[in-house]
Parts: sequence; C-alpha cells; structure tokens
Amino acid sequence: MITLADVEAARDRIRDVVRHTPLDHSHTFSERTGAEVYLKLENMQRTGAFKIRGASNRIQQLSEAEREAGVVTASAGNHAQGVALAATRAGVSSTVVMPEYAPISKIKATEGYGANVVLHGEDYDGAAARAHGIEREEGRVYVHAFDDPQIMAGQGTIGLEILEDCPDVETVVVPIGGGGLISGIATAVKARTDARVVGVQAEGASSVVPSLAKGERVELDRVDTIADGIATRSVGERTFEVIRERVDEVVTVPDEAIASALVAVLERSKALVEGAGAISLAAVLERAFDYETDEVIVAALCGGNIDLNVLTTVVMRGLIERGRYLRIRTVLKDRPGALERLIEILAEKRANIYAIQHDRTSKDVALNAADVELDLETRGHDHVAELIATLEEHGYEVEVLV
Amino acid sequence: MITLADVEAARDRIRDVVRHTPLDHSHTFSERTGAEVYLKLENMQRTGAFKIRGASNRIQQLSEAEREAGVVTASAGNHAQGVALAATRAGVSSTVVMPEYAPISKIKATEGYGANVVLHGEDYDGAAARAHGIEREEGRVYVHAFDDPQIMAGQGTIGLEILEDCPDVETVVVPIGGGGLISGIATAVKARTDARVVGVQAEGASSVVPSLAKGERVELDRVDTIADGIATRSVGERTFEVIRERVDEVVTVPDEAIASALVAVLERSKALVEGAGAISLAAVLERAFDYETDEVIVAALCGGNIDLNVLTTVVMRGLIERGRYLRIRTVLKDRPGALERLIEILAEKRANIYAIQHDRTSKDVALNAADVELDLETRGHDHVAELIATLEEHGYEVEVLV
Repeated sequence: MITLADVEAARDRIRDVVRHTPLDHSHTFSERTGAEVYLKLENMQRTGAFKIRGASNRIQQLSEAEREAGVVTASAGNHAQGVALAATRAGVSSTVVMPEYAPISKIKATEGYGANVVLHGEDYDGAAARAHGIEREEGRVYVHAFDDPQIMAGQGTIGLEILEDCPDVETVVVPIGGGGLISGIATAVKARTDARVVGVQAEGASSVVPSLAKGERVELDRVDTIADGIATRSVGERTFEVIRERVDEVVTVPDEAIASALVAVLERSKALVEGAGAISLAAVLERAFDYETDEVIVAALCGGNIDLNVLTTVVMRGLIERGRYLRIRTVLKDRPGALERLIEILAEKRANIYAIQHDRTSKDVALNAADVELDLETRGHDHVAELIATLEEHGYEVEVLV
Repeated sequence: MITLADVEAARDRIRDVVRHTPLDHSHTFSERTGAEVYLKLENMQRTGAFKIRGASNRIQQLSEAEREAGVVTASAGNHAQGVALAATRAGVSSTVVMPEYAPISKIKATEGYGANVVLHGEDYDGAAARAHGIEREEGRVYVHAFDDPQIMAGQGTIGLEILEDCPDVETVVVPIGGGGLISGIATAVKARTDARVVGVQAEGASSVVPSLAKGERVELDRVDTIADGIATRSVGERTFEVIRERVDEVVTVPDEAIASALVAVLERSKALVEGAGAISLAAVLERAFDYETDEVIVAALCGGNIDLNVLTTVVMRGLIERGRYLRIRTVLKDRPGALERLIEILAEKRANIYAIQHDRTSKDVALNAADVELDLETRGHDHVAELIATLEEHGYEVEVLV
C-alpha cells in the first residue's frame, strides 16, 4: 500500500509540470453551513483537472526503454488530457483512445496537449479494448487511470497542498470515481494529521458503500449520473484497499444536489467545475455527513472540464432545483386581454418572464381557449409556491412543467 | 487629480474588507497570442467585482455625522453589491435603488450584503433620480459609482496588486465604463513604472475614443452591448481628466469578440466572468492594440456577476462565433430513409447532433418534402465550411440559421 513517502516523492517529481492550485476560503458557503468551508480549486489545475498529477508521476518513472516505446491509455475525459500533457512535457510519445462520440472539445484539447488521438468504440470499454490492443501491438506502456500506486501517489500531492495551505483542516471531502484521488489524499492526510477524510459518490454510481458493507469490491451493472468524471462501475483493487484502511466515511449525493452545487460555485465563487468537481461541496451543503459549527472543512473541487453545452443544461437543472426557474402551463380564455391579465399578475408577484409560448391551435384545449407556456425567473421555493397559489386564486389551473 | 499616495492610502484603508485577488499566468492565452498573458482574477473579489474597493475607500472616510446618516446609491449591478457590503462592514446603513426589473439574483445578493433595496424606475436613470430623492429626504450620502476621487483611488488598489505580483508588467489592459477603474489603475501604474495602460470599450458603448478626439467628453445617445457593466453613455468629468493624462491608448471591441473571450476564459481558465470582465482579454485576443512577442500583458478581468440565464445565451453566441455550434435548416424529400441518410453524412463528417426538429407540416415546403432543422456541435470554422460543402455536394440546400 502506498505511503506518505511515495506522495512526498511524487511532489518533488511533478513540481515543474503541475500547479499548486489555490485554496479559497468561501464566505458564502461558510455562512450557509456554519462551518469554515475552503474550496481546493483543482479545476484551475493545468488541463483543468487533477489527473495530470498522477499521470506525471507515472510517466516520469518510466525506464529509458519504456520512454522510447511511449505510452497509451483510454479515456473519454480528464485522464486523456492529463496523460497527453504529462507525456508531452516528459518528451514521451502518447496515444489516447477515446470513444467515437467523445465531445469534440475534449478531443481537441487532448490533441492540443500533444497526444495522438484514436477514436474507437461506442463507450469507454470499447476504447479501452483498443488501447490494450495498441499496448500489445506497439509495445507502449498502458497508463491506468487510477488503479496504480504511482498514479495514486501523484494525486495525493493535492493532500500535501491542502495541509500546507490549511494546517488546521479537520475534514477533507473528496469525490470517488475509481478511487485514485481519494487513495492518494487519504494517504497524505491520515499520515500527517488527525483530520477526517470523507469520500463522496453520486447516487447513480455508488459502488463503495455496498463494497465496504460486503467487505469486497462490488461492481455495478450500470451507472447513471451527470457527474461523468466519476461514473465508474467500481473502484480499483488497490484503491479499494486504501479506501478501506484510510477513509473514515463514504456518503452519496443525488444528481440534483450536484447540479445545485455546481450552480452555486459558478454563481458565488465564479469558478467553473464539472459535476464530479461539484460533488464534494454538494455533500457539505446537503449535510450528507455530520459536522460541527466552525469545523474546518476542505472540499476538493477536482475538475472543471464540463462541455459548455452540457453546462447550459446543468445550470438550468440547478436553477430549477433552487426554485430560481419555473416553467408552467395554463389555459387562457381566448378573448382579448386574457394574456395581458396573466402577465399583470406575474409582474405584481415580481416573477420575470423569460419566454412565453402562446398556442391557440393546440388540440388539447377547448375551442375558445388557448394554451400558454411560461418560462419564469423566480426567487426560490417560497416564491414559486406563492406565485402558483396566487394564480390559482385567480382561477388559473397551473401545471408545473419543470 | 488623484495621486499614487491616494491609492496607497486606500490600500491600507480597505485591506480588511477586500481580497488581494489572484494573478493567473495563462499558458493557453500566451500560446495563442505569443505574448506572456496574465489574468487579474478580480471576478474572485468579494461581491464578485472590483466595485467594493472604491466603495470601501469612500465609506471609510465618512465623517461621524455622515456615518450616522448612512449612504444611498443607484445601481443595477456590481456597484450595488459593493456599496452594500462595504457599508455593512463599516457599520453604516445603506439604501440601494435598483431598477424595477433588475435581475432577481442581483437584488437578492445586494440584500444579502445588508442593503435596504428599493426597486424604482424602468432603468438606471429612473433609479438614480429616486436615489437622489432619498439623498435629499433622508440626508444620506450619495456614493457615486465612478466620478469621485475616493472611488477612483480605491479601484486603483488593483494596480498596486498587479505591480506587486508582476513587477515586470509591460502592458495593463483595463475595461472602461464610467472610467473609475482605469483612472485608479493608471494612476498607480504610471506613477511606479513605464508600463503602458490600454483602455477598452465595447463598440456599442464607445464614448472615449470620440471624446479624446474632440478634447472633451462626448455623451452617446444610446448604448448597446452585452457588457452591461460598462454600458455607460459617457465617462465622468474627473475620470476623463485622468484618462486623458495617464492612459496611453483606448480601443474598442465588438460584442462577438467579448462573447468569444468570455467562453474562452470559462472553458480554458475555468473562471466565470461577465461581459465587462471578458473585454480586456478580448482586446488582447483580437489584437485590438499592437504588442510584441513575449510582451508581459496583464488583462484585468474586472467582474464575474453575470446572470446565469444570460450566461447560457452568451455561451451559445461565443460557441457560434468560434465555429463550435451550428444551426442549419434543409429540406428532405419526404420518403423513408431521407433523414437517416442526412444523419449518416453528418456522422461521417463527425458533427455531433444536439437537436433535430423535423417538420412535415410546415407551410413553406412542398407537399412531398419536409423541413428539418439541426443543431450541431462542430470543430471550428473550417469544419463548418467543409460540412456545408459536403451537404451541398449531396444535393441538400443548406440554410445557416446561426
């Protein structure tokens, strides 16, 4: 099992390639929770995520022959970019197999960091099969995304930075996908302090809680979460060992809470994180684990590589979740002034209108009536409830669409 | 005219309320431009923008009687939040008049920082009239958003931080709305170094270039830009004096470039900025002014308070501007397989499909044909051109919608 010394050695090895990312004290989230909340802004890491730490530590320990042969890996996401840049910076050739329908932005970024990108397969499994093919055919070294001691030790350097910037930390909250990140961080943190390490998984990709209960790794049949960076069916063999030994608690949070935290970080901290990056803060905001008033909590925001088109969808979900966006349908008597009257009521209740769809020809409504759909900006759940009650008092039947 | 000493005094005065924001070296933008580009992440300032610096400096110099009376201002945006928090932290009561249809998020934030918010008027002018009314009726001190030496000196503390974190800076790029920010920064930078100060305005709100040409302040009839934080019809009297004396060059950039820079910062630096915050980087990326290879350029990203619904729209514009998003309309022969064939071509050209609208009943097309609208993810302008050419080769008439 990896040790503190491995992590410390990794830090020296990767210093020139990797940024020491900022640790940001959040007034907003501290006030909201009563704890002292710090955000480890690993989304500001080079390549936009922590993966470059492990990849650099791995690649810099290759033998001369291995360096000559180059590396290969499969990834649809952050590991692809981490391996690409780590290899390029070490002067090593890299091939990255990505699923055929990977977002173009990620393909371009990986190429931009110097990898030879091969598109293959419908999903990660298909890409990984091809990558292992290339490993055999070309004699390249396969760089695993998490289940490798050198990878874990590299990711653990985040733990050292947290301890350096916040020596009185009491709880560190870390997302779990394959488990490489938390294995490294827990190794550093538990060796140096009494601080607690809490792992977080998405409800739709939660293999660790049942694995710990059973005492052996459980593999899920399927995963379903907006946090694609941690949508894994199981943790690794080696990472599971470390998690069992060094992680104090593992909790899960639903996608709604992830979307809500992502929006909150964007709006209040002005930082872009991906779903997997928001989940640690989501666990704090949702009190998915217990903590004391004034407890010093560091949430690791592990990555920021969210496709911008996905972002707009998630932002919408987050706003809905927080009662800040409402879409309703109602029926108007189709006579002059009916729509104006409705708009007047909304203005009185100070709901801003984003969009109106007014359909006089829908088949579902009576001939003398018209369907209207409204997209509204609202102030929160109380405001939504008040608004609907007021409309109903005025005789409107309101159907909440989202 | 304000002096370096004023700015230095401001720094000591506001130290406890204001953050020294990070200066971030950007690999991506340095590579893209050939310069050494640093981003001053003032979007991470408390309240999300620089305005709290000036407001704090002003409010902390109130007499005891003025403190008792409290302050008042009008603002639809960042100044509202800056005054609210600065006053609360100084133990001074604040009233902020905002236009009636100000975004709810900004109203809530301003209230959250402790101000008494009054909603009045259709626009800023209406709100300002009411604020001056309150000034007279209640004897409160009116805190101007820019045309005040104490405000300018407070904003200038950004300049001191830039010089401290990047002593070899050669060019500082600063947005201009009312001119308070650039007046302060130019005062600090020009007093201490030979570095150049470049001001940037949005094309749709560009009063300074004609004002400098004429030798006196020009007031625009109307303004139109997505950078609402700098959508002012003219700079101030006092700020114009400082700009004339201490700013080396003033340039303008179009909204498309602002949207594109905003998207680039979000995607590459993982930082959320508003339009006014992105414009300084836009000027660098567009080469709106000349610079040398390896020139050390600091772009001040002055704020991050963009309404999330506006963000989704701007992101879309930015993606379109960069050839990353395409919406087209074409007509299919309405027979089995026609749509499948079209989709096949798109797949071959690796354009990802976000959305399809397939309408067999549109009045605009012949009876045996069907209109189809496609939203596509593309790789850039070359890819867009190639895609359209291929579709046309296959006999499709393509109309580009956005």
